[in-house]
Amino acid sequence: MGKAMHLTGSFHPSQRVLLGPGPSDVPARVLNAMAAPTLGHLDPEYLALMDDTRRQLQTIFRTANELTLAISGTGSAGMEAVVVNLIEPGDEAIVCVNGVFGTRMKDVMERAGATVHAIEVPWGETIPPERVADALRAFPRARVFGIVHAETSTGAHQPLEEISKLVHASGALFLVDAVTSLGGLPLEVDAWGIDACYSGTQKCLSCPPGLAPVTFSPRALARMDARRSKVQSWYLDMTMIRNYWSADRAYHHTAPINMTYALREACAIILEEGLDTRIARHSLNHRALRAGLESIGLHYIPSQSLTTLNAIHAPDGFDEALIRRRLLTEFGIEIGAGLGPFKGRALRIGLMGSSSTRRNVQLVLAALEIILSRSGATSAAASIYAS
Amino acid sequence: MGKAMHLTGSFHPSQRVLLGPGPSDVPARVLNAMAAPTLGHLDPEYLALMDDTRRQLQTIFRTANELTLAISGTGSAGMEAVVVNLIEPGDEAIVCVNGVFGTRMKDVMERAGATVHAIEVPWGETIPPERVADALRAFPRARVFGIVHAETSTGAHQPLEEISKLVHASGALFLVDAVTSLGGLPLEVDAWGIDACYSGTQKCLSCPPGLAPVTFSPRALARMDARRSKVQSWYLDMTMIRNYWSADRAYHHTAPINMTYALREACAIILEEGLDTRIARHSLNHRALRAGLESIGLHYIPSQSLTTLNAIHAPDGFDEALIRRRLLTEFGIEIGAGLGPFKGRALRIGLMGSSSTRRNVQLVLAALEIILSRSGATSAAASIYAS
Repeated sequence: MGKAMHLTGSFHPSQRVLLGPGPSDVPARVLNAMAAPTLGHLDPEYLALMDDTRRQLQTIFRTANELTLAISGTGSAGMEAVVVNLIEPGDEAIVCVNGVFGTRMKDVMERAGATVHAIEVPWGETIPPERVADALRAFPRARVFGIVHAETSTGAHQPLEEISKLVHASGALFLVDAVTSLGGLPLEVDAWGIDACYSGTQKCLSCPPGLAPVTFSPRALARMDARRSKVQSWYLDMTMIRNYWSADRAYHHTAPINMTYALREACAIILEEGLDTRIARHSLNHRALRAGLESIGLHYIPSQSLTTLNAIHAPDGFDEALIRRRLLTEFGIEIGAGLGPFKGRALRIGLMGSSSTRRNVQLVLAALEIILSRSGATSAAASIYAS
Repeated sequence: MGKAMHLTGSFHPSQRVLLGPGPSDVPARVLNAMAAPTLGHLDPEYLALMDDTRRQLQTIFRTANELTLAISGTGSAGMEAVVVNLIEPGDEAIVCVNGVFGTRMKDVMERAGATVHAIEVPWGETIPPERVADALRAFPRARVFGIVHAETSTGAHQPLEEISKLVHASGALFLVDAVTSLGGLPLEVDAWGIDACYSGTQKCLSCPPGLAPVTFSPRALARMDARRSKVQSWYLDMTMIRNYWSADRAYHHTAPINMTYALREACAIILEEGLDTRIARHSLNHRALRAGLESIGLHYIPSQSLTTLNAIHAPDGFDEALIRRRLLTEFGIEIGAGLGPFKGRALRIGLMGSSSTRRNVQLVLAALEIILSRSGATSAAASIYAS
């Protein structure tokens, strides 16, 4: 085998400003932590780190759930882990669909053998509690109810508390997708009665992608323990993953060691800032961005917007792909495109985790002023910060 | 939410010498590459990196298979990806079982709905071609045949070429677990007629755990294209993952960006060394270690040993857990314990990737001489290097 020199040499990625739907900017502290020497996955130092990480995630999920850990895959692996462990073939489930991720959850549930009843509302809308009450009455045998807290494809912010009460009264488990909310928006796993919740590391936690924090309530554990069939995924089977994260430390698979270093450091940064302070920061920067965008005639898509992701209609008369390309090439700023029915018709600006700063808000507004030949956005944002 | 200071502060893991069954030592070059700024998963620079990585993996797998890429999970996710994409419920399969990973493959196939016929031989043995011929005759409807090239639990090195011919004559697809062989042992995906092969990054590639290189032959692709049912795993569904790795770049899930930086750098190191040179290095260091171990009365478990992993019977009169603990605490060396029937009765010494060095061979032998109060191991190894 000869040397293949064209494949070697170093890779030096550009330093972007990540204002898309994820990943968000990763602090140097987190990148450095990830580059610490690799330990074995059964090394006592690594096992102590896992315990540390579990406690951090419990604090950030606001839960006492013992089964709280990071799945060895990205956010979608977290979705699949929650679904395949809590659904058995033939189960009935209800899932709320108002964007890409509700659609995905329905697909994942069906692949797990569930009969899925969808509550559908137009993309950009949130799910009204009355629709939930109707569905629970219509499908009283539903054992699982799934909903997306922060729909990354539309920017819609779904209220959960009232719906949780309805679901619990029906006896179904309450499953929540918190990929774009954990660490950036209020999310109360215990206080809101969430039975299973998953997220990703690359959004409001500002850690590289590669792990999926999950948490399961005692009710969810009881459901798993009562299963009549094996979980269809060996890799995501929580009964075995629990044994590795528990005092038993039974080998299941080799955990992504260095990714866990990164997650621990990202969580440490969150706990140092304080979760409430962090949530308030996301809210302030969102309000400033929104004031700026609306001042130059841009309109939000969702009726209730996330503070972590801003989905707007692409401005008339402009090629949205060209706007994104100019932001990337002229300013080094990444923002996101529309998906599904919004493909080619939307722009998505994320302000997640470390990316949610006053500096970034003013930067992206200034860049948009130039590209769209409009003015006033940065000063509109400034007035929010001044108030 | 108050500050939780006990969770913060930096984590500084010890610098181990990783001579267990994986992870192996990760070069500083790879750790540094991983800590480069995070890009978006649709950034043109990241897409170019993916193409680069695919070409590197093709070279290392020795294949022209277009569908060659890294799955976003550890080696076991690679196993599951291969199985769930190539098996449909009701399919018959044959799997060879002579250790933990053959047992695991059988479990994963059954969870995918296959009727699995196992060829079982005692742990430590390899599978004789005659047993394969018998099984193919007995189960002519088998659509998939699975085997482990390098059985990490026993150190057995499985010859593949003759078995591949038998399997191909039967019409079944030939699936190979190369977790502990890729990049360290001869492995010829195309020349040996392997239809699907998976590995992990943390063994002979000397990259942190978190990705699973996989490759699929055109025959395997045809089988996927002819499926009558959806792949049960959404996360591992190759039809969608292919679209992201292809020119379409259709969003599926957010790839573990920084892990891919690390994999590219690890592959670059392999290609700079040259695959044949690297394989010869693993062979030489294995022979030296073996000479040393046998000179102090230690016996290999497998009839045909891997060069990448050395599984030996624990010495009589010693507590194997204490040997491992002393190696870790007094010398900073990690080696592995026995699994399954060898639990408490074996030691496993990995010499994989960057860990396979003359320096490490002499170090672990010197440490064992001290712990076991025996002598002659280091000089026996030295004579191999001198010859």
